Order: sequence, then structure tokens, then C-alpha cells
Amino acid sequence: MPDFPPEEYAARVARAQTAMAAAGMDALLLMTEVEVRYFTGFRTAFWQSSTRPWFLIVPREGEPVAVIPGIGEALMRATWVRDVRVWSSPHPDDDGVSLLRDALAPYRVVGMPMGRASALRMAMADFRRLEIEPVNASALVWNLRYVKSPAEIEAVAAICAVGSRAFARAGALFSEGMALNEAFRAFRIALLEEGAEEVPYVVGGAGQGGYEDVISPPDATPLRAGDVLMLDTGASLRGYFCDFDRNFAITHASEAAKQAYRTLWKATEAGLTAARPGRTCAEVYAAMAGVLGDADGGIGRLGHGLGTELTEEPSLAAFETRVLEPGMVLTLEPSIGVGPGRMMVTEENIVVTEDGPRLLTQRAAPELPII
Amino acid sequence: MPDFPPEEYAARVARAQTAMAAAGMDALLLMTEVEVRYFTGFRTAFWQSSTRPWFLIVPREGEPVAVIPGIGEALMRATWVRDVRVWSSPHPDDDGVSLLRDALAPYRVVGMPMGRASALRMAMADFRRLEIEPVNASALVWNLRYVKSPAEIEAVAAICAVGSRAFARAGALFSEGMALNEAFRAFRIALLEEGAEEVPYVVGGAGQGGYEDVISPPDATPLRAGDVLMLDTGASLRGYFCDFDRNFAITHASEAAKQAYRTLWKATEAGLTAARPGRTCAEVYAAMAGVLGDADGGIGRLGHGLGTELTEEPSLAAFETRVLEPGMVLTLEPSIGVGPGRMMVTEENIVVTEDGPRLLTQRAAPELPII
Repeated sequence: MPDFPPEEYAARVARAQTAMAAAGMDALLLMTEVEVRYFTGFRTAFWQSSTRPWFLIVPREGEPVAVIPGIGEALMRATWVRDVRVWSSPHPDDDGVSLLRDALAPYRVVGMPMGRASALRMAMADFRRLEIEPVNASALVWNLRYVKSPAEIEAVAAICAVGSRAFARAGALFSEGMALNEAFRAFRIALLEEGAEEVPYVVGGAGQGGYEDVISPPDATPLRAGDVLMLDTGASLRGYFCDFDRNFAITHASEAAKQAYRTLWKATEAGLTAARPGRTCAEVYAAMAGVLGDADGGIGRLGHGLGTELTEEPSLAAFETRVLEPGMVLTLEPSIGVGPGRMMVTEENIVVTEDGPRLLTQRAAPELPII
Repeated sequence: MPDFPPEEYAARVARAQTAMAAAGMDALLLMTEVEVRYFTGFRTAFWQSSTRPWFLIVPREGEPVAVIPGIGEALMRATWVRDVRVWSSPHPDDDGVSLLRDALAPYRVVGMPMGRASALRMAMADFRRLEIEPVNASALVWNLRYVKSPAEIEAVAAICAVGSRAFARAGALFSEGMALNEAFRAFRIALLEEGAEEVPYVVGGAGQGGYEDVISPPDATPLRAGDVLMLDTGASLRGYFCDFDRNFAITHASEAAKQAYRTLWKATEAGLTAARPGRTCAEVYAAMAGVLGDADGGIGRLGHGLGTELTEEPSLAAFETRVLEPGMVLTLEPSIGVGPGRMMVTEENIVVTEDGPRLLTQRAAPELPII
């Protein structure tokens, strides 16, 4: 039932326990979709309901303890987790608080992710009733998640292949005069047809020679000749994500658009050359930024981790001193300004190996494709 | 560009400000996707990236202030919000904290949702650096969100119609021998074809005379004769959700399955009779629970609010004393046990009007449909 065999999850917990011993933590308290799924295999879309909190305790010794609403009991019991404690949720005045407090009672130093990209997915009022003073476990958890197992890499590779197949159909999917929101719809359907399980993330844009931004939902504006259409997808399979985009010019492209695209392609090449074990994220960033020069598109970084989430730590940014290791899955995502309020972005997904990066996405064409 | 005209959002802020004056709050601090979108119209799938925090301040007097990463500036400036303050994110050591602290400085009593269904969508370590002691604004915000405007009701009705059209194609979409995950895929595609913008939520199950749970992802098990297939969808349009399901028997149904389905149908009828202005959520719950008797399926409630989220407050539960008002959009969701470890569930979406409930979904058939 879970996405991987029990050994995969047990190995993750074992690594966490080794790190906890070194860090002097007695237990981890986890409550977000990704963190709970990472250690248990508990995967459900039901996290989209904000009503109920869910908790997982990973003790320094012994097995994890799930403290969850009864609606999730059957699914949690289908995972490798054996200690499953449930309450009827929603509850008028004690939505898991007593049960969680009791479960945490044996532990003195409780770690909880409290750094970048973390969230407290429970009512702050209830958190205060726990009367715990957790220490920050963000670095500990990210140190586990940075390096993917062979099973995880295979999962990301599979969804990247799905995305590549869907993008390969662009010439048949998109055409002049098509409304942008219909292009998005056609692309979502293509991703599902090619094997995506879920398509939680499709963003993009279109405009003459470039687009205004990269996070807006689409409107019904028709694609025009000379537009550059960009679609960026985070589709998923077994809970693992791809995150990449492609650009297409509609019927023709200006020289400026072609040139900007070539610069992005070269920046990605520089990233591919730099992304080797032992190099830092900052060095990979610098290699790409050197190609972009002053034209950087202003996204705030030039790539990031990828796996159980669409975007993970680390960032490919000037400040990120993290050293690349084999098994890290990253996106290379250079962006470029192409005139006032216009930009272009491209993205590839790679896994770092001893021999350098291996592309998980089918490499974008070196010249801006015209459809 | 935003989903509704500026007046819609301005009216929401005006209602909030009236409530803040009554509650003695000087400003609201909001940071979740739904809360920021509710007051601004800022809608993007980019919230799925956990890397960056986003903030909105709604002062008791004057206009809202957005404190956001630069990547969102163009989209936020396309909304009615005029005070947009940005920083380059991710940042090595100050990811919006100073900017937010400065923006909050004028306000003495800061309200923040800290009750049921709330989350702190920022690093706890950064929250502590704000050095604020917020008061709980959950009740205030839910009191605004409970009652939908005509524009909101229209949006929910539109996506419910999409879902109803997709379910009407069930006979052509699903058949004996089809793998459950392929049935999910076909249903997602049908929802998109019928007009859904996003399909963030599809859950369901299939089994002889009932299913094991209602939140699991599908596997490749083929649909068998005598299975009851249930699909539950939260599709969305303009950021508003439907949330309903339908049951279908594959080629034939046992008498027990037919009878359980009839009981669910009658429970929904009882809910439809009870869901009138002036009645409490507990009374609507009791009307449905009375039909189910001891057979309740154990989901923890028999319906809930619906709108900008798949599940919203209030719960249709024995403890919920909230009184129904015209404009409240609710789901009626009775579930029933049908033997050891098996259940069945049905769901309709309604809006409460002066004259009683209006169905937004096409009412489920009174007898279990066989396909």
C-alpha cells in the first residue's frame, strides 16, 4: 500500500535516530504532510483539509508513534507504523492535545522543525497547551532529506519522464489563438494521460518575447504570434515531484527572444558543468549567474532541492554554502529579464552522482522551439 | 486579473475592520494561502512551495499591507492592494522578518488566527524574532468567512456544476476490470474537460459492498462486479471548491449495499429538511445522525463549511452550536458502517437561504446507481 517497502522508511528513521543521538534530541515532533509521509509512507490528499491536525513522534530509540484523527487510522495502519493512537476529530475542546502531550511525556528534549520552509500545522493555541519548549530540528531533518535514496531518485526520474513526454506533445497541444487557460487545461490533461498521478502545480505565462511573471494563474487571453509561452509543472507520482518548465514561441520568435533563450540554455549548461560532488550550492549558483550577468530574472535563486516537495532545501543561491553530495536531486532554474516587466525562465531537474549530474528531464532544445 | 472585482475584497476588509473595532484589535496578521487570498484576491499555485513566507496585515483603519517575496510583486500589484512591500527571498538570515516587524510596529493589539484549522505558515524561529504577543483572531476571521457573498456562492455553484457534469459521465468513464487508479485518472480528466481549473483533491475507494476508508490514494486493483466505487472530489474554479462524492455499483449491488445507500440518502434528506436559518449545526447533525443511528461511519462529523477551502468551519457535529444563516455554504456528508472495516459515504453541497437550503450539487440518485 505505501509507496516504498517498509525498509525504506525504517532506514530513514534509523538515520534520524543517529542524528538525534548526536544532537542530543530525545524525540522529533513532526506535523506537516511531507514530514509525516517521509518517515511513515502515509500519503493522502486529505491534508488539504485544514480542519484536523496530525502528529508523528520519532523517538531516539524505538519505533515512531502516530497520533492522528480516527479518519486516518486504516490508512496509517497500512504503513509500517505499529503504534497508532487516534482520537475522534474534530473535537470540541481537545483536538489531540491530551493524547499528544501524553505521547510526548517520556521525552525531555523534543526537536521540531522551526527554520526555513517549516510551519506549525496546528492551532497555536493548542501548541501552547502542550507546554513544550522544542529545539530547532530543521537542520537535522533537512540533512536527512537532502540526499535521496535510489528508490526516491527512481520516483523523481519517473515523474520527470512523464513531464518530458507531455512537453514533447506541445506542438499538438498549443497553437495560435488558443486561450492561455485552455493551454493550461490541455497540458494538465496531457500530464495525466502520460502517467502523472496528481498535477498539483501548473503555472506559466505568455507574452510577446517574454512573460510578466511566473506564478500567475492563466486568464483567457489568446496566444498570439510572437508570444513566448512558458509552462512550469510540478506533477507527482507516488508522492514525488518533478519541477520543470519549457518555453515555446508561437509561430515565430523575435531575435531578442531567441537570444535570451540561448543565454538561459548556456546558463543551464554552466550549472550542469558545476553541479559535482564537493562543489557548494553557491558555486553552482555563481556558474549560472556568471552567464546571466546583470540580466538575472529576479526569482531570488537559480534552482533548489526537489523530491517529496515541489521545492526543497537547499537553494542555489549566493548565500548557500551547502556542499553537493551524490544523491542530491536539484533543479537548475536560471531566469532572465527580457525588457521592462518581461522575463524568461527555464528549468531542468538533475541528480548529483559521483560522475557529475545526471539529467532527469529531457534536456530543453538549445534553440527556442517554434510551434 | 483577480477573481472578483475590488469591491468584493474591500467589503471583506470593511467587515473585518468593523469586527476588529468591536474586538479591540488594531491589526490582523495573516499568512496562509486562503486568508491572504480572501482579503486580496492574490491567487497562485506558488503557495505549494514551502520555501517562502507571505504576509498580509489588515489594519483596523486604512488599507491592507502586503509584505511578500519579490517573486510575487507583479501578481500582488494586479490586485486591489496598493501597499506592497517586498524583499528578495529566500534570504540567508532575514526572510521578511525585519520588513514585517516594521510593518507591524504601529499596532498595539495584533490578532492572528490561532484556533481550529489555523497554522503558522512561517518558521517558528522567525515568528519569535517578531516579538509580538498576538491575540486569537480565529473567531473573528471565521465569522467573516462563514457567510458567503453572492459572488462567492456563484463561484461554488459553478464548480459544483462542473463536478455534477463529470459524475454524470460515470457510466462511460468507469467499468468492471478497470484499475482503480485509472478510474481516478479518468475522473480527473473528466473534471478538467467539464471546466475545472484545478483538481487538487480526488479521493475514494472501491470494495465489495463498501470501501475500507475514504482518504487513501488509489492502487491498481481492478474494479470487480459487486464493488461499490466512491469518488470524492474537491475541484476548484476561481479559487472556490466543490466537495462532494458519488457512489456507483459495478454491474450489480448486494441488498445490503442498496439498503446502506438508501439510509445515507434519507440521512441527507433529513439534513436538507433541517438546514434552515436559525437552526444550529448541532441540530442539523442530530437530524442526520437520527437516521444513521448506531451505524455512523466514524468520520467525526456529518458535514462542514465549504468555499475558499475544501473544508471550512463550522462542523456539522454534536458540539457545534453555531446558528445557520443565509449565505452559509455547507456540505451534508453522512457516512455509514456496512460491516467490519467497510463503510459508505455520500455528500451534497448546499447554500442556506431564507427559504431553506438550495442544492448546489445535482442531487444523488435515491437508489444506488449501477453501472
